[in-house]
Amino acid sequence: MQKPSLPKGTRDFGPVQMARRTHILEVIKETFQLFGYQQIETPAMENLSTLTGKYGDEGDQLLFKILNSGDFLKDVESTDLESGASAVLPKVAEKGLRYDLTVPFARYVVMNRNELTFPFKRYQIQPVWRADRPQKGRYREFYQCDADVVGTESLVCEAEIILMIRNVFGKLGLKDYSIKINNRKILTGIAEAIGEEGKEGPLCVAIDKLDKIGWEKVQEELSQRGFGNQSIQNLAPLVSLEADLAGKVEFLKSFLKNSETGLKGVEELEEVFQILSQMGENLDFVDFDIMLARGLSYYTGAIFEVKVNGVSIGSVSGGGRYDNLTGVFGLPGVSGIGFSFGVDRLYDVLDELGLFPEENLNGTKLLLTYFDEKGFSYALSLLNIFRKAGIKTEIYPDQAKIKKQFEFATKKQISFVGICGDNEIQSGTISIKNLNSGEQNSYSIQEAAGLLENL
Amino acid sequence: MQKPSLPKGTRDFGPVQMARRTHILEVIKETFQLFGYQQIETPAMENLSTLTGKYGDEGDQLLFKILNSGDFLKDVESTDLESGASAVLPKVAEKGLRYDLTVPFARYVVMNRNELTFPFKRYQIQPVWRADRPQKGRYREFYQCDADVVGTESLVCEAEIILMIRNVFGKLGLKDYSIKINNRKILTGIAEAIGEEGKEGPLCVAIDKLDKIGWEKVQEELSQRGFGNQSIQNLAPLVSLEADLAGKVEFLKSFLKNSETGLKGVEELEEVFQILSQMGENLDFVDFDIMLARGLSYYTGAIFEVKVNGVSIGSVSGGGRYDNLTGVFGLPGVSGIGFSFGVDRLYDVLDELGLFPEENLNGTKLLLTYFDEKGFSYALSLLNIFRKAGIKTEIYPDQAKIKKQFEFATKKQISFVGICGDNEIQSGTISIKNLNSGEQNSYSIQEAAGLLENL
Repeated sequence: MQKPSLPKGTRDFGPVQMARRTHILEVIKETFQLFGYQQIETPAMENLSTLTGKYGDEGDQLLFKILNSGDFLKDVESTDLESGASAVLPKVAEKGLRYDLTVPFARYVVMNRNELTFPFKRYQIQPVWRADRPQKGRYREFYQCDADVVGTESLVCEAEIILMIRNVFGKLGLKDYSIKINNRKILTGIAEAIGEEGKEGPLCVAIDKLDKIGWEKVQEELSQRGFGNQSIQNLAPLVSLEADLAGKVEFLKSFLKNSETGLKGVEELEEVFQILSQMGENLDFVDFDIMLARGLSYYTGAIFEVKVNGVSIGSVSGGGRYDNLTGVFGLPGVSGIGFSFGVDRLYDVLDELGLFPEENLNGTKLLLTYFDEKGFSYALSLLNIFRKAGIKTEIYPDQAKIKKQFEFATKKQISFVGICGDNEIQSGTISIKNLNSGEQNSYSIQEAAGLLENL
Repeated sequence: MQKPSLPKGTRDFGPVQMARRTHILEVIKETFQLFGYQQIETPAMENLSTLTGKYGDEGDQLLFKILNSGDFLKDVESTDLESGASAVLPKVAEKGLRYDLTVPFARYVVMNRNELTFPFKRYQIQPVWRADRPQKGRYREFYQCDADVVGTESLVCEAEIILMIRNVFGKLGLKDYSIKINNRKILTGIAEAIGEEGKEGPLCVAIDKLDKIGWEKVQEELSQRGFGNQSIQNLAPLVSLEADLAGKVEFLKSFLKNSETGLKGVEELEEVFQILSQMGENLDFVDFDIMLARGLSYYTGAIFEVKVNGVSIGSVSGGGRYDNLTGVFGLPGVSGIGFSFGVDRLYDVLDELGLFPEENLNGTKLLLTYFDEKGFSYALSLLNIFRKAGIKTEIYPDQAKIKKQFEFATKKQISFVGICGDNEIQSGTISIKNLNSGEQNSYSIQEAAGLLENL
């Protein structure tokens, strides 16, 4: 008899975890919908031709490939075997598991471009798979939760992303957080301004580590990447700049005065701030972080990153604007902006801060209990009444001792127990016991239903 | 430049399909929760040792296998290649994609048996994958939607499954359907009673086809399967029996009088009917179908099947009781009952009957439009007000001609357009046009929000 186990890096979600995840995702979905985003889903399996080459060499290695069905060896020769896995792979696997939601979305946009209404706002919440080495907090299957709008360059989108993040965090009870924002064009401008034109790529990679390794080590890395000492010195005032939002904008206008791209980046950010003001938002929560780079090279405009303060968990949301989502699939010129929530991390944050609702999420509210056959029968007759009032109600299905029924309620975190004893049957009432407070009272059935409906 | 495509047998779900699917699934989830079922999720990937051998030889062939990551060929010798795919498979693939939700659930119960509260009621809504030949209505990736309760033999569960089906169908607007019910023990009894004891397996397989191929062909098949002519003649009165529920019960009590198992089956069904009566339900919708067999051999008690009348679509729900869900994973004696909804088929049924809500499900309700920069700015200032009232609201993000904005609203099936012109700006009002009726009126902002909130 085999002892079952899970593949490494994967996990089950039990009832409590699921209810909490659902709580998070419902808040996110409601917010996306409030802002006009529509949900789509794509298949778990994509053709390897769709996936390969989109995530760099390392990404290609981390794709889970699906063995062709039937006789998967039919095209494999013994000479292929000698050439190794890379020669055999294309002959035995045509499909792979989704690695992120961005590439499938790009494919979807291209395949449906004639039917879609642009600007097209979509959200997508599905698992992705990566053959990464599993470690704490890193799984081989995990959910991504993305929203993108494509087919517009309007900076209203940037402003609305900030509002959506605020909306979600507000509803989840998160108060102390910062939304870091920057613009990739500013980084390009900085490279120009310090005398390293075109080297914003390595500049970003190095700067991205500023928080983690500090300015000294970043200087070393820049030096190794061929940045001159003068360039690095030119960069220093920016790294040490301490100013408020307006002060930073002013500084940059001067610092980037010879970089058209850089000034465009500043201008775009200013417009985002202006739109937010027109929308009646104050900017206290916006942290203009000139050094924010984010790793992904396809960003071309605004970039975001959100961190919750006071917890030891990395960024829980991020995103940015890109110029060319679908070019690789033959449809150039589709620009847009996207962002995502890290559901696993949000879960950990809410857990650490004790922000999950105390109530038994989505769980049963009332267990009907009884002492004997007569009470069982009475309880059966009441079930429909409570359920019709929308109250999640159960009966302990096997006729058992009432002690066992109460234990069941406690274990399942059911807050209220309805007792169907002889007195209750005779008077057509029910005694409701609140298992949290211990309080117990007798009610008419309608009273009890009304009471529990509103709790 | 590659032209992207989908793997055969898979599909994308666009915004309209997703909203409709969500509508169906929300109704189902609400119902499951109302009856005390809790959601779990299991990983898409399972160890092949968990999956293999659970679905018969054909099922094993239809499992999608995942190529081991890294150098998947490292254990493959050239002699393996000569032995063929079945010799190579165990060396190159350890994991497979979930084929159904039942086996992962059984694995989950076994792995978590010490933490779970029994009777454990769970529901699970996730995609499954089968390397079947794709054809109309048959996909390689599709959702299953299962509910099971394990750890009890109480027939309250059977009754509640019937109520859940009624609840879901009621909320979806489905009125004309029949819930077929039978008991596997009755079929065992019938085999005994006709003189073919122990042959209920082939009897079920043949009888299962009664609807499709008719009694004549079923007789031929029974004959081929070694049933004697006398046995087949003994079966005939049952096949031709026309009686109401009570009449069928009466007939069977006599027909099965020498089969203890058969009589037990009848008794169980009677108890289910009695519980339904105690719950205040009439039995008009219950179709006791003595010939209902269902293919799955692991059922041991009640079996269900639900068909919507007046559509050309097969059963949309079904299930049954089993004695030994987890035995294969080393935990004997876990009995329970499960059923599932066929989401794709329910979708087709609602579509065919025109039962999807007319409204733009989960979609934007209000688009704010404007003629110029001033109107754009005014519209921006109103967005938050409408959204705070819970109204799904958008602004066309690029400053465009109002005609284009209206076209966008029409294409996206947005019912209401808010017009922000000079008059509105001066008077602090908004004109709301109902795009379905053509009606247009001017309101204060609060009036407009109140109006749309309640629509």
